[in-house]
Amino acid sequence: MQLGLVGLGKMGFNMRERLRAHGHEVLGYDPRPEVTDVASLADLAAGLTAPRVVWVMVPSGQITRDTIAELAQVLDAGDLVIDGGNSRFTEDRPHADLLGAAGIGFLDCGVSGGVWGLESGYGLMVGGGESDVARALPIFDSLRPEGERADGYVHAGPVGAGHFAKMVHNGIEYGLMQAYAEGYELLEAEDLVTDVHGVLRAWTKGTVVRSWLLELLVKALAEDPEFAEISGYTQDSGEGRWTVEEAINHAVPAPVISAALFARFASRQSDSPAMKAVSALRNQFGGHAVQRVSESG
Amino acid sequence: MQLGLVGLGKMGFNMRERLRAHGHEVLGYDPRPEVTDVASLADLAAGLTAPRVVWVMVPSGQITRDTIAELAQVLDAGDLVIDGGNSRFTEDRPHADLLGAAGIGFLDCGVSGGVWGLESGYGLMVGGGESDVARALPIFDSLRPEGERADGYVHAGPVGAGHFAKMVHNGIEYGLMQAYAEGYELLEAEDLVTDVHGVLRAWTKGTVVRSWLLELLVKALAEDPEFAEISGYTQDSGEGRWTVEEAINHAVPAPVISAALFARFASRQSDSPAMKAVSALRNQFGGHAVQRVSESG
Amino acid sequence: MQLGLVGLGKMGFNMRERLRAHGHEVLGYDPRPEVTDVASLADLAAGLTAPRVVWVMVPSGQITRDTIAELAQVLDAGDLVIDGGNSRFTEDRPHADLLGAAGIGFLDCGVSGGVWGLESGYGLMVGGGESDVARALPIFDSLRPEGERADGYVHAGPVGAGHFAKMVHNGIEYGLMQAYAEGYELLEAEDLVTDVHGVLRAWTKGTVVRSWLLELLVKALAEDPEFAEISGYTQDSGEGRWTVEEAINHAVPAPVISAALFARFASRQSDSPAMKAVSALRNQFGGHAVQRVSESG
Amino acid sequence: MQLGLVGLGKMGFNMRERLRAHGHEVLGYDPRPEVTDVASLADLAAGLTAPRVVWVMVPSGQITRDTIAELAQVLDAGDLVIDGGNSRFTEDRPHADLLGAAGIGFLDCGVSGGVWGLESGYGLMVGGGESDVARALPIFDSLRPEGERADGYVHAGPVGAGHFAKMVHNGIEYGLMQAYAEGYELLEAEDLVTDVHGVLRAWTKGTVVRSWLLELLVKALAEDPEFAEISGYTQDSGEGRWTVEEAINHAVPAPVISAALFARFASRQSDSPAMKAVSALRNQFGGHAVQRVSESG
Repeated sequence: MQLGLVGLGKMGFNMRERLRAHGHEVLGYDPRPEVTDVASLADLAAGLTAPRVVWVMVPSGQITRDTIAELAQVLDAGDLVIDGGNSRFTEDRPHADLLGAAGIGFLDCGVSGGVWGLESGYGLMVGGGESDVARALPIFDSLRPEGERADGYVHAGPVGAGHFAKMVHNGIEYGLMQAYAEGYELLEAEDLVTDVHGVLRAWTKGTVVRSWLLELLVKALAEDPEFAEISGYTQDSGEGRWTVEEAINHAVPAPVISAALFARFASRQSDSPAMKAVSALRNQFGGHAVQRVSESG
Repeated sequence: MQLGLVGLGKMGFNMRERLRAHGHEVLGYDPRPEVTDVASLADLAAGLTAPRVVWVMVPSGQITRDTIAELAQVLDAGDLVIDGGNSRFTEDRPHADLLGAAGIGFLDCGVSGGVWGLESGYGLMVGGGESDVARALPIFDSLRPEGERADGYVHAGPVGAGHFAKMVHNGIEYGLMQAYAEGYELLEAEDLVTDVHGVLRAWTKGTVVRSWLLELLVKALAEDPEFAEISGYTQDSGEGRWTVEEAINHAVPAPVISAALFARFASRQSDSPAMKAVSALRNQFGGHAVQRVSESG
Repeated sequence: MQLGLVGLGKMGFNMRERLRAHGHEVLGYDPRPEVTDVASLADLAAGLTAPRVVWVMVPSGQITRDTIAELAQVLDAGDLVIDGGNSRFTEDRPHADLLGAAGIGFLDCGVSGGVWGLESGYGLMVGGGESDVARALPIFDSLRPEGERADGYVHAGPVGAGHFAKMVHNGIEYGLMQAYAEGYELLEAEDLVTDVHGVLRAWTKGTVVRSWLLELLVKALAEDPEFAEISGYTQDSGEGRWTVEEAINHAVPAPVISAALFARFASRQSDSPAMKAVSALRNQFGGHAVQRVSESG
Repeated sequence: MQLGLVGLGKMGFNMRERLRAHGHEVLGYDPRPEVTDVASLADLAAGLTAPRVVWVMVPSGQITRDTIAELAQVLDAGDLVIDGGNSRFTEDRPHADLLGAAGIGFLDCGVSGGVWGLESGYGLMVGGGESDVARALPIFDSLRPEGERADGYVHAGPVGAGHFAKMVHNGIEYGLMQAYAEGYELLEAEDLVTDVHGVLRAWTKGTVVRSWLLELLVKALAEDPEFAEISGYTQDSGEGRWTVEEAINHAVPAPVISAALFARFASRQSDSPAMKAVSALRNQFGGHAVQRVSESG
C-alpha cells in the first residue's frame, strides 16, 4: 500500500527501506535534503492519494507535537496518522483529539528493535480503534518480524496503549541491562574467572539467562574487550523515567527498574553531592578522614 | 565414553537420558530404587572401568559434601569427579583438596537449563585444570546445546570458576525475572492496556527485551491467565544470596540483583515487622490511623 | 496579631491553640460547627480587620484549590494568604497568580511536627516574597519551636520553595523510618538479641542514630510490644511520591527514598502480581514447585 | 574501679579521659609510647590487681584476635575481658571460648558516639553473662551518657548480642545518612530553594526528621559550604556489609541499608564497569552514541 513517512533518521530511514522491500510505496519526508523524497509536509500530502496514511517517526516531545499539528493542517478528513516515535503515552489522547477534530484518525505505535529492525523486523505495540488498525495492518505486517503475527505485533488497546506498552518495554529493558551489567562487573572482579568473555558467550545458548541483549553484550565485548574505549557515562531517553513515574501513579513497586534508572543518573555525575554529604557526616561523628578534592585523581 | 552419575532427580535423570541418547554408557546411582542402576556408590565404582569419571548431581550443601567424601573412599587415584550441582564456589577448593589427597581429580561445573536441558542442551560453565577438562570434554559436548561449543560451554578458570560463573548467572536471572515481573504488574495496573498477554507475546520477536525467560512468561500466562492459581510466595535457592554476598566482598554495587532477592524475602512474609514499625511511627508523629490486625483481611 | 485560620483538623486545631496561647487573635473557620468560630469564609473575611492574613490548613489538592479560589473572592487587595498544608509545590505558583490578580499576597509554608507541634512548636519552611514573609513573621515566630529562629524556621526562597523543602523533608522521613524499620526487623530476627526494646532505647542517647523518630519508635513499642496489634499495611500521603518524581526530574539518584516508598506500596498488596510472575517463571524453567493460592495461609 | 584499657586511639584515648574524670583508675596500653601507660600487655597485667578487668579497644579483625589471644596468656582465671571495638559478632563466641578455657570471662560491647563520646557519653550495647555484666557496670555507667541508664546502655543478650546490636546500629546509620544525603542533593538541584543550608538548619528543631546526624550535617555545611573541599569518595568500615549479610542470612528485606552500602561502593569507582556495559548495550541495539573515554572529563 501507499504510506507517507515523516522522519528519516536512524529508525525512519531503515523502515522506508524495509517497507519498500516489501513492495509498499513509501513517500518520505525529512528536513535533510539528502534523504527526503519531498520538500515539505504539504508536498507529502499532495503526493499521496487520499485517504492517506502517514507515519510519524520523529523525536518525541515538541518535534512530534509540531509535526502532528502541521499534519492536522495539510491532511484531510478520512486520513490516518500513526505516531511511531517514543512519545509519552499521555501525549496520544491530545494528538488523537486534535486530529479527530479534523476528521483524521490516529494510532500510536511503539516500535522496538533499533538498528536491527531493518533486517529482523520490529516489535510493534499499537493503540487505537479497530478500523484504523485494520487499515494500517499491511504496514504493520511488513514492519514486524516474519512468522506469526502475534509474536511481534499486538493491538494493545485504545489510543495510548501502544506507547504505554512501549514505555514499559523500555523500563524492563533498563532492568535487564542493569542485571547483566552487575553480573558482568562481578565476574570481572573475581580472579578465579579467567575468561569472562567466554562465560558470557557460553550463556547465549541453553541457559536461563539467554537473550538477545546477552548476545549484544558478547558482540560488544568482542569489539572492545574490557570496554577500554567506552565510558560508563550513560544517557537515558525518557521512557525509564516515565515507567517509574507510572509505577508510582499506580502504586506498583518498581525497585529494579528504578535502581537501573538511578544507576544511569549516577553514571553521569563527576562527583555526587549526596556522597559528599555522607563523607562529611562520617568525618563529623567519627573523625574519619575524608578524601579532599585535591586528592581525587 | 563411560560415566558414573550420582543423583537422578529432575536434573540428573534427564542428563542420563541425554547422554545415553548421545551414545555414552551411563551408570547412575540414586537412593531411590526405581531410578537407580546400582545399589550403592561402591557398586557404582565397581561397575566402572578405571580410570573412572563420576558426575555428582545432588543437592548442594551437606548432601554434596557427604557424596564427595564417600567418593573419595570408593574411587581410586586417577579417577575424576565432577560436581555439577549448585554448590557454592567456596566449597570447590576443599572438595578438590580432599579428592586430590587420594589422587582423584576434580572439576566444578555450573549447569543451566532446568527441565528444558534434556531437549535443548544445558549451558555449562566449568572450573578446573586443563587435562581434567579435556578428559571430560565428550560428556560436556553431549550435554551442551548443539552448535558451536563456545555458545553453550566455557572453561571459565581453575577450580571454583565454574560454580562462581553459575552463581552470577543465577544472580542475573533473579534480576531479569524481577524486571519482567515489575513490567508485567505495571501493564496489568493500567486500564488502557486491554491485552497484557498479547503485549508480552508481541515482545518475543524483534524487540530489545526478547529472551527465553520472556517466552516462558508468555507460556505460563497461557497456562494460567492472570496467575489466578499461583501465589506470589517465592522461594530462593541460595545463589541469589551468594551473588549479593560476593558483590559485597568485591565492593561491586548490585542494586538490581539485591532488590530482586529482597522482593523474594518480602514475598514470603505474611506481614512485615519493618512495615509494622513504619506504620507505628506514622501513627506516633502524625496521628495517622493504623490498620489494626483485626481489620486486615 | 490577628489571623484567620481555615481548617481546624488535627493540625489546624492545635495551631489555633498555640497561637492563642502566644497572645494572637485567631479567628478559625472549619465546616464542622463544633470547632469553627465563624459560619463561612465570607464571615471569616468580615470578622478580620484589613489588611488581613489568612492561613489555610486544609487537605492538599482539590480542597486547598477550592479554598484558595474562594478566598480570592472574599478577600481584598492587600490581604495575604498562607498555604500551610501539604500542597505539592507545583500548585503554589498558580495559587500565587490567582490571588495576585486580585492584589492578594501569597506564601507557601511547609509545616512539620505533627500532633506534637502544639507543645514543641512546628518546623516551618516558607516560600514567597520578603515583605509578605516579614508581615507574617509574628505568626511564624509563635508557631516555630522556642530558641533561635533559624533552628526551626527558614525563608527557603520564592513562592514554591517552602512546599518543595517540606516535600524533601517528608521524602527523607520515609528513608529514615525505613532504615530504622529494617534494623528493627533484623534485631527481632536474631535470637542472640534478647532485649530488642532495650537496644532501641539504649540508642536514644549518645549514639550516632539518636533522633526524635527513634524516641517515637521506643514509645510505640512500649505501648504495643512486638506490634502485635498493628498491621504492616502502610499508607503514603503523596510527598514521598513527589520527592521521587522530582528526583527523576532533576536526575538525582534516590535509591533509598524510592526503596522506602516502594516498601509502602508492597505493604498494601495482599499478593504481588510481580511475585506471582517470578514464581511462575521459576516453575517454568526449573520445575520448582509454586505455592498454590489454596495453600497460602 | 580499676580498669586495664588496651588501645588508645581516637576512641580509647577519649575513653581513658572520661573514665579518669569519673574517678576510675585506668591503666592504658598502646604500642605508641607517647600515649601508653605501660610497655606491654604483660606489664598491664602486672600493674592491675586481680581479679582484673581489661577493656580492648583496638581495630577489629586480626589485631583484636591477636590482642585477645595474648590477653589469654597474660591474664589469670577470674579476670574479665571486654571487647569494645567494632568486631563482627561472629568473632565473639570464639573469643569467649578461648578466654573461658583459661577461666577468664568475656563481654562484647558495642560503643557508639565517636569523637563526641568524651563529652556526651557513649551509647553502649553489651553482650555476655549477668555476673560479668554486673562486675563491669561501674565502667559502663561512667562511659554512657548521664541520665537514666536504659537511655544509653543495654545488656542486649548473651555473648555476641552487643556486637550484633552495634552492627545493626551502624547499618541503620548508613541508611539514615543516605536518606539525608539524597534529600540534600535534591534541595541543591532545585533552583527555587535559595537557602539550602537554612532549610537543613530549620529542620533541626520541631520537625519529624530532627536528629543528631542532621545537626552534624548543618555543622559540616557551616564549615565547608557546598562541600567544595570534600570528595564524594566514601569508605565503609565493615558493619554495613555485615548488616546486609545478616539480613540475607535471616531473609530480612533490607533495600534501604543495602542501597546505602552500594552507593558507597559506587562512590569509590572512577568509572563503573557495569555502566560501561550498559552504555555499550545501548550503542549496540540503538546506535546511541557512547561517550568515549577520551571525552570524559
